[in-house]
Amino acid sequence: MKAPLATKIGIIGGGQLGKMMILEAKKMGMVINILDPEENCPSSSIADCHIVGGLKDADAIKKLAEISDVVTYEIEHINVDALFEIEKTGKPVYPTPASLKIIQNKLSQKTRLIEEGVPSPDLLAVGSPDDLRRAGEKFGYPMMVKACLGGYDGKGNFLIKSADQAEEAFEALGGNDLMVESFVDFTMEISVLACRGRNGEIAVYPVAQNDHENEVLNETRVPANISAETSKQAMDVARRVMEIFEGVGMFCVEMFVLRDGSVSVNEIAPRPHNSGHYTIEACSSSQFDNHIRAVAGMPLGDTSLIKPVVMRNLLGDAGEDGRAVVTGVDEVLAIPGARLHIYGKAEVKPKRKMGHITVIADTLEDAVKNGEKAHKALKILGK
Amino acid sequence: MKAPLATKIGIIGGGQLGKMMILEAKKMGMVINILDPEENCPSSSIADCHIVGGLKDADAIKKLAEISDVVTYEIEHINVDALFEIEKTGKPVYPTPASLKIIQNKLSQKTRLIEEGVPSPDLLAVGSPDDLRRAGEKFGYPMMVKACLGGYDGKGNFLIKSADQAEEAFEALGGNDLMVESFVDFTMEISVLACRGRNGEIAVYPVAQNDHENEVLNETRVPANISAETSKQAMDVARRVMEIFEGVGMFCVEMFVLRDGSVSVNEIAPRPHNSGHYTIEACSSSQFDNHIRAVAGMPLGDTSLIKPVVMRNLLGDAGEDGRAVVTGVDEVLAIPGARLHIYGKAEVKPKRKMGHITVIADTLEDAVKNGEKAHKALKILGK
Repeated sequence: MKAPLATKIGIIGGGQLGKMMILEAKKMGMVINILDPEENCPSSSIADCHIVGGLKDADAIKKLAEISDVVTYEIEHINVDALFEIEKTGKPVYPTPASLKIIQNKLSQKTRLIEEGVPSPDLLAVGSPDDLRRAGEKFGYPMMVKACLGGYDGKGNFLIKSADQAEEAFEALGGNDLMVESFVDFTMEISVLACRGRNGEIAVYPVAQNDHENEVLNETRVPANISAETSKQAMDVARRVMEIFEGVGMFCVEMFVLRDGSVSVNEIAPRPHNSGHYTIEACSSSQFDNHIRAVAGMPLGDTSLIKPVVMRNLLGDAGEDGRAVVTGVDEVLAIPGARLHIYGKAEVKPKRKMGHITVIADTLEDAVKNGEKAHKALKILGK
Repeated sequence: MKAPLATKIGIIGGGQLGKMMILEAKKMGMVINILDPEENCPSSSIADCHIVGGLKDADAIKKLAEISDVVTYEIEHINVDALFEIEKTGKPVYPTPASLKIIQNKLSQKTRLIEEGVPSPDLLAVGSPDDLRRAGEKFGYPMMVKACLGGYDGKGNFLIKSADQAEEAFEALGGNDLMVESFVDFTMEISVLACRGRNGEIAVYPVAQNDHENEVLNETRVPANISAETSKQAMDVARRVMEIFEGVGMFCVEMFVLRDGSVSVNEIAPRPHNSGHYTIEACSSSQFDNHIRAVAGMPLGDTSLIKPVVMRNLLGDAGEDGRAVVTGVDEVLAIPGARLHIYGKAEVKPKRKMGHITVIADTLEDAVKNGEKAHKALKILGK
């Protein structure tokens, strides 16, 4: 026995989300095992046991389950059938494979939301370029075509501007398991992190305002610049999503704010999320702490905002490729309220998520200003 | 290369202080090597490399230095001569061996403070029971006898109430390297955590109010219930101590508040300190983050208090001995603003530091109340 707090957590995936889960779980003395194909993945040096294997490798997942009390994951594109097998043996898996299976496929995820009356764009399943053109007649252009499986950070999305692009979009997204959504004319992108315990307890974080660049998250600021009414609606939607999917653990509900101030769900991630990194510094319990609490069957922690906060993503710049070297660290750390997170990926690539900066301040204005200053100072170069 | 942020930190000691340093350093992607005799010490599972060896083993310390860019320590009772040797090879050691050597010995530590005009009790070196009786004539009774080397948590201290106890005290403390301090009639015990960077930058945390039980820290609350004037004096003293010892890294200055509101230094620890654990939740940069920043030569982080906070120590109760089992976890985690730290020591012993609870709240009153409730709920039993 390495630790007196008995829970042994198995995490599928050893990227930055897994790493930040471990940093919280270790505070409580838990034992953490991970499964990840990369020997030097961000979680590796702080995991108790690292099974080197593929995220979809059923045997490796089984091995992970055997040495863990509960299995969770930091990425949704994994082998859900293997998770069902683990669950059958009596070993808990959270979020449940049943909820993951629905969420993994964007068509079933969004269909479920629409059935339940959760505000989200109209959609159609498409099986051919002709289907796309028919959808265009219904929704008008532009409209968003999405691969139902496997997309993230804008990958797997294609914005069609006219019927002429039907073939191009169909080919670009691989030609099957596609869906179309009516275009949403939004004024702001927001997200709400929510957590549900094994006993149904739900904790919801405040609304985060997100700014994307080239479809990858660039900045998150909290509180969001929205009305109290919009904020309430967004948090209610997130709570409703947790109930619908009976999710256990952290979920992120990404939403659009429409011109009338109402919200529309864009996407759900059944895990801690990039737009929730701010919670490490700005909340009593971070999204990672609450994820661990939830999957371990513990009461959830306080999700209220302690201070205005800005998070800036550190991505590999265009043209940077090779061994990652971080510059500008001292400029960032000299900024009051700034904390630097470097995930520990040995190689930088363009748009790769290498770390993030969080800045808290007494006013959001100061946090925004300092976040921008910090972001400008820090560079991750490829040597 | 495991991490892109190049600094490799070597820590002598792998207890809870080392563990909490690693949890902060890992956020920035640093590589951490430790030296500790216990294979399952609290830091072991999250260190990149664990050299299993004694804290005073010069060869082991040399090995640690060889694989690290900078060497630091989480405990002051180590082999300072070995540290001087490391420094001679050009490898930086922080806090410096020169400052450690003076601080390690309470007589030289306090003599230095008195020379520099820092308020602290009168003292006398003693070499015999007769010396003790002579000190008693000068200081009156009660008076505190201290072993100059190696004491902590009240170990190495003896309160003499009359001349009759001179022989008893002399024997109990091992009979050499002893000193006597005049008794301090204090109204409160406080501590100030301070940090000094390699470039001389100093950051001082707010004053912490400490409550000891059987000479071991029981509770810390911040802000302390003292006047603005006393607070300023205490923080000035801490800053002055950092200048005197040219300390690099975190120091803790424990002080007494006297009846007139002035302060008197009790003891200095050249490392993060139990009474500074509150900084993890209640400050933007914790004492562990700032220690790492300082020894790595980085700018220091913000030390201001974000919320009122209470820290409660989790010690092994009298009579508990054996494999540690934690009970009452759910009651603690259900308290708003409560965070639980379990160090991961496999065996519990009476008075052994097994973990701590931190509670933040909007008012100190609520933090105190919730801290007490949490502390009562949690038990660490020996099975």
